[in-house]
Amino acid sequence: MELLKQRILQDGKVKEGGVLKVDSFLNHRMDISLLQEIGKEFRRRFPQPEINKILTIEASGIGIAAITAQYFNNADVVFAKKTKSKNLDGELYTVPVRSYTRGELFEVQVAKRYLDENDCVLVIDDFLAHGQALKGLMEIVRQSGAKLAGCGIVIEKGFQSGGEHLREQGVNLQSLAIVDSIEDGVITFRKD
Amino acid sequence: MELLKQRILQDGKVKEGGVLKVDSFLNHRMDISLLQEIGKEFRRRFPQPEINKILTIEASGIGIAAITAQYFNNADVVFAKKTKSKNLDGELYTVPVRSYTRGELFEVQVAKRYLDENDCVLVIDDFLAHGQALKGLMEIVRQSGAKLAGCGIVIEKGFQSGGEHLREQGVNLQSLAIVDSIEDGVITFRKD
Repeated sequence: MELLKQRILQDGKVKEGGVLKVDSFLNHRMDISLLQEIGKEFRRRFPQPEINKILTIEASGIGIAAITAQYFNNADVVFAKKTKSKNLDGELYTVPVRSYTRGELFEVQVAKRYLDENDCVLVIDDFLAHGQALKGLMEIVRQSGAKLAGCGIVIEKGFQSGGEHLREQGVNLQSLAIVDSIEDGVITFRKD
Repeated sequence: MELLKQRILQDGKVKEGGVLKVDSFLNHRMDISLLQEIGKEFRRRFPQPEINKILTIEASGIGIAAITAQYFNNADVVFAKKTKSKNLDGELYTVPVRSYTRGELFEVQVAKRYLDENDCVLVIDDFLAHGQALKGLMEIVRQSGAKLAGCGIVIEKGFQSGGEHLREQGVNLQSLAIVDSIEDGVITFRKD
């Protein structure tokens, strides 16, 4: 997605260790016009009319998923929680996930009543690196018996293994920008 | 907002101790069509053309703020973080806030570069009870020198003190549904 790549080049910041920060438009301040274009692009890449739910994970995925849902006939958005929340009760789908960046284990949780075998689910997240959170969300879809339409990612770090691994498994993974390398502060994208 | 009140009566769950749960449409599964109506209502109640930013707090506020921003000419949304995040660097506005429900202190944090004296800010959140989180967000607006246009809340617990206290201070607080009491499972709303 050319608009997104240009925005990453313009406003993304490369920090020590090749960390790419996009908090100026994606995960702290959100540019709503850009999110609308991202939502349209996800619809173009996932045209399946049976998609009726979008699953994401708190916190950064929520805004992207909410705007995107509007291009999926206002599909319901379910956002998984990372911690036991007072907003969650009843039976839960629960998957333990290891965060590479924080070096800790957390639980991805979704109330069972919001996902079942009658649903067709698009999983959305802002970043894909090692893919642990995304695999956790996919495991929840599997547990629920819902159909997985695919996974839509805004920015994939192509130099880490998560995306490649999922594609090898046959997952319909669509990343709107794949960063192949960050070297000496220079960001290189994979060709579409 | 009649549509919202009807939805709370229809799908809200009253738990022990008078806890109102709206995870079926607001803060776990999100009904995007309802959020659009909520966004339109916030616009109606905050018509000031100078509003250029919406400030909220992770996680439940994000989806509401993102959809609402569309009715404010796609105003930027900034969501405060509750924990030190790798997505945050540079100088921060930081306010300590006590959570009554979790009984713990946390820090509300916003990067200084996303809020300053040139901004006119609408603060949005899903719930208002004691008002600690909301006061933290307002304190960040104050620190930034931005103008506070007002605070928009989806559901206020009118039997707790947060809203009354803020109105006495002259804050332009607009709550789309004010719950005056929850007794024996019966929800009573304040008249508009």
